[in-house]
Amino acid sequence: MKNLTIGVDIGGTNIKLGIINSQGKIISRGNLQTTKYAKSKNVLIKALISELDSLLEKNSLKATDILGIGIGLPGLVDYEKGNVIFLPNVPGWHNVPLKKIIESKIRIKTFLDNDVNLIALGEWKLGAGSNYENLICITLGTGVGGGLILDNKLYRGEGFAAGEIGHIPLNEKGKKCNCGGTACLEATIGRNALMQKAAILFKKRNIDLKEVYDLAEKGNARAIDFWRQTANHLGNGLVGIVNVLNPQLIVIGGGVSGSYKFLKPAFLKVLKERTMTVQSRMIKIAQAKLGDDAGIIGANVLVRESVS
Amino acid sequence: MKNLTIGVDIGGTNIKLGIINSQGKIISRGNLQTTKYAKSKNVLIKALISELDSLLEKNSLKATDILGIGIGLPGLVDYEKGNVIFLPNVPGWHNVPLKKIIESKIRIKTFLDNDVNLIALGEWKLGAGSNYENLICITLGTGVGGGLILDNKLYRGEGFAAGEIGHIPLNEKGKKCNCGGTACLEATIGRNALMQKAAILFKKRNIDLKEVYDLAEKGNARAIDFWRQTANHLGNGLVGIVNVLNPQLIVIGGGVSGSYKFLKPAFLKVLKERTMTVQSRMIKIAQAKLGDDAGIIGANVLVRESVS
Repeated sequence: MKNLTIGVDIGGTNIKLGIINSQGKIISRGNLQTTKYAKSKNVLIKALISELDSLLEKNSLKATDILGIGIGLPGLVDYEKGNVIFLPNVPGWHNVPLKKIIESKIRIKTFLDNDVNLIALGEWKLGAGSNYENLICITLGTGVGGGLILDNKLYRGEGFAAGEIGHIPLNEKGKKCNCGGTACLEATIGRNALMQKAAILFKKRNIDLKEVYDLAEKGNARAIDFWRQTANHLGNGLVGIVNVLNPQLIVIGGGVSGSYKFLKPAFLKVLKERTMTVQSRMIKIAQAKLGDDAGIIGANVLVRESVS
Repeated sequence: MKNLTIGVDIGGTNIKLGIINSQGKIISRGNLQTTKYAKSKNVLIKALISELDSLLEKNSLKATDILGIGIGLPGLVDYEKGNVIFLPNVPGWHNVPLKKIIESKIRIKTFLDNDVNLIALGEWKLGAGSNYENLICITLGTGVGGGLILDNKLYRGEGFAAGEIGHIPLNEKGKKCNCGGTACLEATIGRNALMQKAAILFKKRNIDLKEVYDLAEKGNARAIDFWRQTANHLGNGLVGIVNVLNPQLIVIGGGVSGSYKFLKPAFLKVLKERTMTVQSRMIKIAQAKLGDDAGIIGANVLVRESVS
């Protein structure tokens, strides 16, 4: 046993793999194009197993050198049974006993979880949230996701569906959200909503959020205000959760968090002003540190938390 | 050791005490008027200790017959240290090491917690929530409070201030709340707000909410609609928390929950319609079962959870 883990991050376009040591460092990497294998779940699982095998071989490692395999998936995962319940954006994934399948092919203990939960685990143990016992990790991207570390443990919810920060309503009335809800945070600050707003504001179709960031960097008042308003909505959305959970830290990750610099002041101001005394005094915010590796590093943490 | 506990519920007007057996049954009671002793915290603590002593004596019990004393207080309590940090409505209570004081006078292990946390513990183990691992307990009264059981454990938050369901904002803009926040649920459905609304609606100053309940019982459409609207706000306020925590059950207690019958249909409808698929499918609601004894029965649960 060399105290290594393998982290796997299954995304809509890529599958990233990494061998991770006990310090949380990625010592070897693998990669697969999800789209190339997405036609059937069996094809994808076969490709994943073969990539796992070659990663071991490339590093001259045996199954017994590996503590466990952690796998993050973009959807609903039964962590306890090791089943993928449902992936909304990868066809054919309904109730797949992936843990059992992997373990039958490769003799390494395997653990599955939702990808945002793994980001939360990664940031908690090896990123922006180390030494915190109660934190909320938010991913700002096409979706607005979340993971909760409560009492020094990942909280998954009764049906493994906890953490849906993006589906906190901002108001009692408003736009219908894709989830079926009304006035959800994601419907206002998800990437699509922000891009639509930016397109109108800057009179340019398909304007990229990176451009709005660059404009803000150049001091463009409209762009700075765009991020300030985004942060206000984010803050307003989080006030209730901060009052109810009394966390110590909110970690902001995901693609849109590239604009953290412009989001931070207004976000923190709203939280400090609108939350209750105790909650307000202790809440801190931080930018996620692990970037694109958060998923595989979090998968490594999942393994270490699960086997301990 | 007779496997008994003593539960104490310190309220703004009364202090209730009870000796509770291993089945959660109150086998003997004590009582003090808070107001009579509230002039100084030392006077109140002395009265409490003397009442505890006489409760033991009356039942021919020795300190060694009692597993522990649990005490619920209406404010911020450091459960770990056993300190009362602050009671907003009882003068002079700032950083009082009540656990240490009681234990030095009576040789029984003592545990303190916030009163709403104790209601949640009581309902979870011995009330409407038994056999549930993830539940939210809400108290509807002058304040709108809450307690969280997550992963089969009371969740207190980083600064022991978690559970503030009443201070979830309903909207981004709105009335300023006493807590400093904006558009909080409590500012819309707390007892005072409801009484003001009822006074206007029924053109009667100081109308009691019990009267509005009685009118609804008689089929008064305006009264039925009053409770329906209240339930809609409550539901709208809870959607975000249900999406984020994915609990199995919401227990509704507190004085205003006397109107549960008229609150239930609309509350459940909003939750089912506005929360996400998994969350919506599993969420249930129930009326609290323990009534006025919830505090002392919860204090009994606190003792048993703490010593085990």
